Order: sequence, then structure tokens, then C-alpha cells
Amino acid sequence: MKNRILITGTVAFDEIETPNGSSGKIIGGAGTYIGLASSLLTQNLAIVSIIGEDFPEEEIKFLNDRGINTEMIEKVIGGKTFYWKGKYHDNMISRDTLSTELNVLEKFNPVLNSDFSSSEIILLGNLHPAVQNAVINQSTNPESFIIMDTMNFWMDNALGELLSVIKKVNLIIINDEEAEQLTGEKNIFNAGEKMLKMGPTKVIIKKGEHGAIYLDGNNKFILPAFPVTRLVDPTGAGDSFAGGIAGLLSTKNKIGFEEIKEAMIYGTLTASFCVESFGVEGLRKLDKETLNNRLEIFKSYLT
Amino acid sequence: MKNRILITGTVAFDEIETPNGSSGKIIGGAGTYIGLASSLLTQNLAIVSIIGEDFPEEEIKFLNDRGINTEMIEKVIGGKTFYWKGKYHDNMISRDTLSTELNVLEKFNPVLNSDFSSSEIILLGNLHPAVQNAVINQSTNPESFIIMDTMNFWMDNALGELLSVIKKVNLIIINDEEAEQLTGEKNIFNAGEKMLKMGPTKVIIKKGEHGAIYLDGNNKFILPAFPVTRLVDPTGAGDSFAGGIAGLLSTKNKIGFEEIKEAMIYGTLTASFCVESFGVEGLRKLDKETLNNRLEIFKSYLT
Repeated sequence: MKNRILITGTVAFDEIETPNGSSGKIIGGAGTYIGLASSLLTQNLAIVSIIGEDFPEEEIKFLNDRGINTEMIEKVIGGKTFYWKGKYHDNMISRDTLSTELNVLEKFNPVLNSDFSSSEIILLGNLHPAVQNAVINQSTNPESFIIMDTMNFWMDNALGELLSVIKKVNLIIINDEEAEQLTGEKNIFNAGEKMLKMGPTKVIIKKGEHGAIYLDGNNKFILPAFPVTRLVDPTGAGDSFAGGIAGLLSTKNKIGFEEIKEAMIYGTLTASFCVESFGVEGLRKLDKETLNNRLEIFKSYLT
Repeated sequence: MKNRILITGTVAFDEIETPNGSSGKIIGGAGTYIGLASSLLTQNLAIVSIIGEDFPEEEIKFLNDRGINTEMIEKVIGGKTFYWKGKYHDNMISRDTLSTELNVLEKFNPVLNSDFSSSEIILLGNLHPAVQNAVINQSTNPESFIIMDTMNFWMDNALGELLSVIKKVNLIIINDEEAEQLTGEKNIFNAGEKMLKMGPTKVIIKKGEHGAIYLDGNNKFILPAFPVTRLVDPTGAGDSFAGGIAGLLSTKNKIGFEEIKEAMIYGTLTASFCVESFGVEGLRKLDKETLNNRLEIFKSYLT
């Protein structure tokens, strides 16, 4: 299969503090995590994003080496790359944002090129829903399978636009707290049912270390997380999960329940490697053989 | 198979307040929940416990109707039954104890009769470890498979005795917070590994609505919980889980990894029915057909 994945998401600098140490200034961003996770399963993918002049050329080259097309990553001469600094609490789940500098992201206006505007899979990483919408509107493939990730920030600040994006997507990926906020339903399956009425025909709700659930009109699936024993940095776990899902789906001829289940397992695994190191290091080091070895271990835990 | 299950645990009165309503004074107790859950899978079981004169005769008859031998439930003439009153917080997980009256439980000295002292399976429900020890010491079957449930209260108040019981059991069932308290390990699998060095060859760690994990020296298993959409009263969930496990294991010729996995699925299901009603009502109404119907649904969610 030669399904293309078009990814939008930030390509950025992060600085992460955890109870066990600090990362220093490293590369990050939803687009980076998604792209790296997807690239373990396909080399037919591109990122639409924006960076400043300060973003290291060798990191772009690294993305290219992984098969990621970066032609749609706009470099703003004289501009500074989006920067986020955060600190995790002792539980390694909740975190405080210490600093956010939007920089070039403020004027991000995604422009698709012809090679990827007709992509079979579009993954809208966590970004302003207006940007997600702009990507959808440039898609020239009415059959594209659109996956979106989002977060509570947009529910608080751009709910109308967010709902209009949700209406257009095939699969929404969201975490449990956000699902509750969006639907007013505490129960995760009830929240999922409500989201199925908002547009998407498929819903995945993430529960962090407790895994994820999936539902569509006919099926339900419950997947535990892979039991990571050395959690170093949870940053990018959700993006890696989404990226693994898109990557696996891109290898399939159709996207039905069986394909989604397999994709969620791969997403869980790419996320598990992500959180075992700071930033994107876990994904950087990961190769397909290591991924497949863990797949066998994980399957043995589930049945 | 005619494997007998010997259960020890409280047979008691409960009064439960939740954000959605109050139960009034109803029957409860770990022994009751365990017995009812096990009785869906076998009629070859007995409860060792103690009650006061105030415990309703028709409730004992109800236990008998479910095949539960109650000859070892000592009735103290002039005594009052153990009583517990608790109130659940809005999250329906944490709770405050409003009242505890030990009553006859203070002088509980379990005495086994010859029919059940050689039981193939012994389930030590949550009770003072000295009582659990007394049951083990009266067992005349050196090959018996001993399962124990416990809670943080005994870690705080009788740790030495608790550890001596843990040393003698085959399978310990404990929740995630208690596993952390007992081992000092935050990570659930690491905590499980430490417990395997404390005596049991098999460990189950419960994660409430997020399911449970199992490990022994060679195998690991991760099982999500059944997604209950109407949570009425979590009381007895853990006891019903343990009871379902013991019930299913009693139908087997051996207790290996495959049997444990099947047992955990049954335990999850009996617990799911338990929490859908106040007190033991969910288990009271439950029949084997309803249980098996949900089994099929649950299996479809897992694979």
C-alpha cells in the first residue's frame, strides 16, 4: 500500500522538568512526535508546520532520514520557533506550563503542496482548530480518512471552531478528561457515544497509563497500556500514540474495526517507547525490530 | 470437578451513602459478597464467619439457597452483628467511614468443620490477619490453593502478622495503592515482582475501574474492567472479584496461567454486576445465563 499521511502539528522547542531531571532545550512538538512515530511504519508521509530560523537544520535532516517529507515545514527567516517549557508533578501525569512562546506559530497558515494535498490519511495534531480546518479545506481527496487530536485548551478558547472541525473528521482521539469536558459525561463509554453524534464515526478515548478505548456504531474495544516500568518523560505520549495509529492504518487497504485495533496496539507501543526517554529520544532510537519485539511481548500480556 | 471453596470474611450489616442515594441498613460483608459471587460458579462452598442474634434468618436461608454452607457461621446469642457505615465521595471511589461497630467480630475465632477443613481452595477475605492465619492453621489439606485479600488497614495496624500470612498464600489479591504501600514501589509491575518474593507464587493487583493485572514468575496478564455505565455502589466490588475468581478456579482440574486468566475475567464480570446495584442486590439478582451473556460481550471488547 502506498497510502500517504499528511500530518499537521507543531515542530518546536521544548524544555521539560520532571522529578528525575531536566531535558534542557530539545526539539519537540506534536508534529515531530507524530511524524517520528508514523515513520516507523511508513515512509510516505509529510509534516505541515512552521519553524523559525533557529530550528536546527540537522533535525530537519533527521526527519528526512526517517522518510518524512518536510517541504511543507515553512521556515520563517528572522523568526523564532515555538517554545514550551513545562514541569511535571511527582505523579508524572499532571504538569504546569512554565512558559509558552508562540513565536512563528502565531502566523501559521498551513499551505499544502500538490504531492500531499490528496493524501489518503490526514492527521490533525493538537493545534488551533482554525489551522486544522485550513488543512481540511485544502484537502483535494474527499475520501481521505481524517484523524484529529485536540485538547481542553481549545474547548475553553475556541469551542465553536473546534466543534466545526470535529464534525468533519472520521476519527477523534481525545483523553478521558477532555471527553468529559466536551460531552458532560463522566462515564467514558457514554462520553464516546455522545461524540459519535458530533460527527466522527470512530472515537478513541485515551486513559494515559490505563490504556485507551475505542468505539464506533457497532463495536467497542478496550486496550490496556503497555506497562512501562521506567517512566522518564510523558511528553509526546499522546502524539506518539496518534502517530503509531496513522502509521499502521497507512499500511492497510481499508480502515475497519480490525485495522483500528491493530493500529491502537501499535500506537500504544510507540507511545511506550516515547515515555521511556526525554523528548523524542525514545522515538529517535527506536527501530522496527525493537518495536516488533515489544509487540510480541505486549500481545502475550493481553490474551 | 468437586473442588470445595472455604471462604472466610465478614457477614455483616452495611449502610452506604452515595451521591445518588442511601442504602439504608442492608446485609453486606466480605464473606457475603465473596460467597454470592462464587456461588454463581459452584455449589460446593462454605463461609466461616460470625454474626449476632440480629442477623436475619432469611438472609442465611438465602445463602443456603445459593448452595452456600453456613454451618460455620457462628451465631452469638445476645450479640450484635458487625456494622459498617460509609459514605462515598463524588468520584465514587474514595469513601469515608462514618461508623464501625465491631460487635461480635471482636471475639471471632474461626473453627472449621471436617467437611471443609480439607477444602481444595481457601479464600481468606479481608479480615484481621490473625483470623486469616487461624483458618490456614486449621486446614488439613497441605495442597490447598490459598487466596488472600487484604487492605491497607492491616498494613498500618498488624503488619507483622499480615506478612506471616502473605508468606503462606498461593495468590494474593490487592489493590494498586495497597501494593505500593506494601512494597514501596510506585510502578504496579515492579510492586508485583516484589510481592512474588514475599511468598505468593501468583499476584493480582486491582486497579478499580481500570481493571487488574496478574503476574507470576513466568507470565503477565493485563485485564481491563468491564465498562459499567451505571455505577450505583462500589461496595463489595473487590470481594465479588475475588469470589468470581475462586468460583471459576473451583471448576478446574489445575490452577495454571490459563485458568487464572479465565478466572479473572469471571471475577471482573461478577464485580461489574455487583456495582450496578446497592449492596449485594446486583449479585442477588444475577443468574448464570446473565453472567454468560455479559461474558460474550466482554470478550468482544477485548480482542
